[in-house]
Amino acid sequence: MTATPFHVYDTTLRDGAQQEGMNLSVADKLAIAPLLDELGVGFIEGGWPGAVPKDTEFFRRAAKELRFSNAVLAAFGSTRKAGTRAWDDPQVRALVDSEAPVVTLVAKSDVRHVERALRTTPEEGLAMISDTVAFLVGEGRRVVVDAEHFFDGYRSDPAYSLAAAEAAFAAGAEVVTLCDTNGGMLPHWVTDVVTEVRESLGVPHGRDAVAGDRLLGMHAHNDSGCAVANTLAAVAAGCAHVQGTVNGYGERTGNVDLVTVVANLELKHGLRTLAGGGLEEATRIAHAVAEITNISPYARQPYVGASAFAHKAGLHASAIKVDPDLYQHIDPTAVGNDMRMLVSDMAGRASIELKGRELGYDLSGQGDLLTRVTTRVKDAEARGYTYDAADASFELLLREELTGTRQTYFRVESWRTIVETVAGAPGHDTAHDAASRDADAVAEATVKLHAGGERVVETGEGNGPVNALDQALRSALTRVYPAIEKFELIDFKVRILDAQQGTDATTRVLVETTDGQHSWSTVGVGPNVIEAAWESLIDAYVYGLLHAGAEPR
Amino acid sequence: MTATPFHVYDTTLRDGAQQEGMNLSVADKLAIAPLLDELGVGFIEGGWPGAVPKDTEFFRRAAKELRFSNAVLAAFGSTRKAGTRAWDDPQVRALVDSEAPVVTLVAKSDVRHVERALRTTPEEGLAMISDTVAFLVGEGRRVVVDAEHFFDGYRSDPAYSLAAAEAAFAAGAEVVTLCDTNGGMLPHWVTDVVTEVRESLGVPHGRDAVAGDRLLGMHAHNDSGCAVANTLAAVAAGCAHVQGTVNGYGERTGNVDLVTVVANLELKHGLRTLAGGGLEEATRIAHAVAEITNISPYARQPYVGASAFAHKAGLHASAIKVDPDLYQHIDPTAVGNDMRMLVSDMAGRASIELKGRELGYDLSGQGDLLTRVTTRVKDAEARGYTYDAADASFELLLREELTGTRQTYFRVESWRTIVETVAGAPGHDTAHDAASRDADAVAEATVKLHAGGERVVETGEGNGPVNALDQALRSALTRVYPAIEKFELIDFKVRILDAQQGTDATTRVLVETTDGQHSWSTVGVGPNVIEAAWESLIDAYVYGLLHAGAEPR
Repeated sequence: MTATPFHVYDTTLRDGAQQEGMNLSVADKLAIAPLLDELGVGFIEGGWPGAVPKDTEFFRRAAKELRFSNAVLAAFGSTRKAGTRAWDDPQVRALVDSEAPVVTLVAKSDVRHVERALRTTPEEGLAMISDTVAFLVGEGRRVVVDAEHFFDGYRSDPAYSLAAAEAAFAAGAEVVTLCDTNGGMLPHWVTDVVTEVRESLGVPHGRDAVAGDRLLGMHAHNDSGCAVANTLAAVAAGCAHVQGTVNGYGERTGNVDLVTVVANLELKHGLRTLAGGGLEEATRIAHAVAEITNISPYARQPYVGASAFAHKAGLHASAIKVDPDLYQHIDPTAVGNDMRMLVSDMAGRASIELKGRELGYDLSGQGDLLTRVTTRVKDAEARGYTYDAADASFELLLREELTGTRQTYFRVESWRTIVETVAGAPGHDTAHDAASRDADAVAEATVKLHAGGERVVETGEGNGPVNALDQALRSALTRVYPAIEKFELIDFKVRILDAQQGTDATTRVLVETTDGQHSWSTVGVGPNVIEAAWESLIDAYVYGLLHAGAEPR
Repeated sequence: MTATPFHVYDTTLRDGAQQEGMNLSVADKLAIAPLLDELGVGFIEGGWPGAVPKDTEFFRRAAKELRFSNAVLAAFGSTRKAGTRAWDDPQVRALVDSEAPVVTLVAKSDVRHVERALRTTPEEGLAMISDTVAFLVGEGRRVVVDAEHFFDGYRSDPAYSLAAAEAAFAAGAEVVTLCDTNGGMLPHWVTDVVTEVRESLGVPHGRDAVAGDRLLGMHAHNDSGCAVANTLAAVAAGCAHVQGTVNGYGERTGNVDLVTVVANLELKHGLRTLAGGGLEEATRIAHAVAEITNISPYARQPYVGASAFAHKAGLHASAIKVDPDLYQHIDPTAVGNDMRMLVSDMAGRASIELKGRELGYDLSGQGDLLTRVTTRVKDAEARGYTYDAADASFELLLREELTGTRQTYFRVESWRTIVETVAGAPGHDTAHDAASRDADAVAEATVKLHAGGERVVETGEGNGPVNALDQALRSALTRVYPAIEKFELIDFKVRILDAQQGTDATTRVLVETTDGQHSWSTVGVGPNVIEAAWESLIDAYVYGLLHAGAEPR
């Protein structure tokens, strides 16, 4: 017999959706599931049919609309209610009706939860597991049992936790997942518990398991900051099934980040875990999921984060250029990510050259140019600019040095913005109460510029001065450059430099703009927040037009 | 002899500052250091004097301006250059000149880096370590040696890595820190390496170490998502010194989050690690540091994240209310955080009561008042206010609830600010050059208000709209309230909340004001940066007048 394939079980659509601020529609779930399949996970937990109406709908539509290459769908649900029969429990029937080939049952394995949350007897708790598993197996389903609060339960009353797991296996469950529901475990505790449980229940080590063997799984949360290590410890101790979510979404500190776990197992332990070999697409997939959940990606996320392979220390740039493997733990292309050089105030020519290469400009051998660009960057950074979060502004600077001229699409004559309150309007107290939050101040901006051979004067309104300037600029330019219609400001960060000078300080504004497909970041600096914002807005428009292929008119 | 105290070594100000997008001013560092001391770390690494001019300045000012209760300052630097003598190397001398009692030297312990990055011989690499450590010890400094790329080096050529560590100890280093510079280690590898190194070098286990013993340290990065677990593994294997940063700031995926490490060691292993018992203040301190770095806190951060103890699963609500300890891995108050689902009157009211006491108001036994204040704070925070870094605004709110009326010194009728450029003036290009930096935009503000029985209309000018408003307000009020003459705005921070909404987002402005002797912080929130700034300015004036003992006129 061949070894049982390792189970990578994704619960982004169910446990991940418990994250604060996340609200997935059926359409969102239908869009995320194929990305998970592309990553190559073996199981996609779609939700809780019967308990959550939109999850019932998801399974109904998924059965018709989705075809996976690697994954099977799992429906999540609870064991039968106390004092009922499994086939009479409508929520259990809904799991069968979902048509998912795998059913994952959450079962209480901590006797304190049986008594205090379920308010039933320990014996009935075990019977609820046995009956429900047996019923579902009889209906032809593969059954996973998620033993909730397993670790806490095992540390308080190991006999009951083992009895719950044994009840699940004995009734035909394929996997019992040991859940660190509260997320407080540390790796050496996980090692001890998994090892003891395997020995007590006669479960072979995952690497030795063959079809029909009992399997243990691991479900980790990150409350101790050890979810990844806990999951790796569980696998090393014999678990053959790992649960987690893309981007580590989940309640509180989140579930374990499944991509980090898989990348560690595949790239560091040489274990084959993904049914499809999608690890090289992991960065794109993780970011695509983030677009759908509309939760900003975390730049410092291991493996797939925007900063994960970004190097700032200029000191090392020359050595990195020669020998990148000495400065990164893996080749970033293995997870579809890229080494990035950050142009910081320690920048030297070597990091500028690498940065140019990353942006598609070959600057090798152009010593004079590199010197000029490096000097300009250092000079600008001394005045408060920072390019490590403003690639687009850096590229405009670089192009200007390369071509000898700055790209111009329009010439600004002047601009003005007014913010005012109206006498007698509410909101002049500072009680921080809802009543005083009425948008009592109004902003208006006027821009005068020359574009397309004409002088254009346009006025914009907004709920703030930058918004009003953006509106005015947009009105003034869209007729000549229709590409601008797609531009949208998506983030706006303000930093006051030189504190201790109060409002006299220099202000740095970073603006992020999108055209719906890509986004770019620009920087502006000035003694005045509005002026700095204006500068970064102009860079954003010029860069966007350049990359849209617009011809100056 | 008593055991050597455990070393908690913070490098937020040095290695943390390598994070993409972070740029700390000297004032920022001077503001962060006392927070680290309050947390109770034993060592604060302030920067690299001699290499980074603003770090030289930080040490100069820190020696005069900062007094710590728990921490000592460490200056970071490199071993001498190849082929020089330690006392001739200006960067080594700058470490002595910094007057920091501890010097931390980065030393190459991976022979490949010695050959390819330093471009010198293995022997000279070792001599660079010995000479520099011996020189600094001779100058009366405690020396920590950060053995860069130790783990990668040890796995490739253990003899050289051990020789580097031995050279450091033999020359008098107190600690050799094993650095996972590329962040790729996994916990069981860390366990093996630390154990072997301890045995090879005759270093006792940290729990048994007494004064004068050799100590090993751990410096982890999070590239494998295992920084916390790697650090815990190192401590379990005998390290007595851990390095990390607040909020896990750092290059790429960041350094290990020092608060998570310390919380795990103290709350789960019962180890005493912090010199001062600041763990119960960890959440406030971590957030206050984030306000200064102006990097949005990560809601899912273990222990101190806004979501870390937030429960969404409605299913469990009633059980959580009865028995919260079954649903959380630790008591959140142990790290100054809160369970969020139970609109936790007790926790909220208790911290308001404590805060009141800190400000000099005895609120004990005033249940109704505490409930009203707690409700107002929660409501305001839901709209974007934060009182963590705005004690003065909180005190105004508290006084209003105590006295039943808000202190008013003046009544604002309306205000307006205009920012404009003059046609034909320079500076409308975006070349980021000095020429375009001329303050070409001018700001003007008009304030109409009633004070001292009169209606006053004053106009102010400034190089930015907030500065102009401040000038106008000052002109309008100084005659009636001369105390205002001493007020000066010293810091001004803007944060955009609700990213992904661009300039439509809510803006939070924090203003710090001084009267030359004390400083106070106020907060304003609005859809508009100017409006938010205005609100915090008004709070700043009212608070300043109140504390100057001014009578409303």
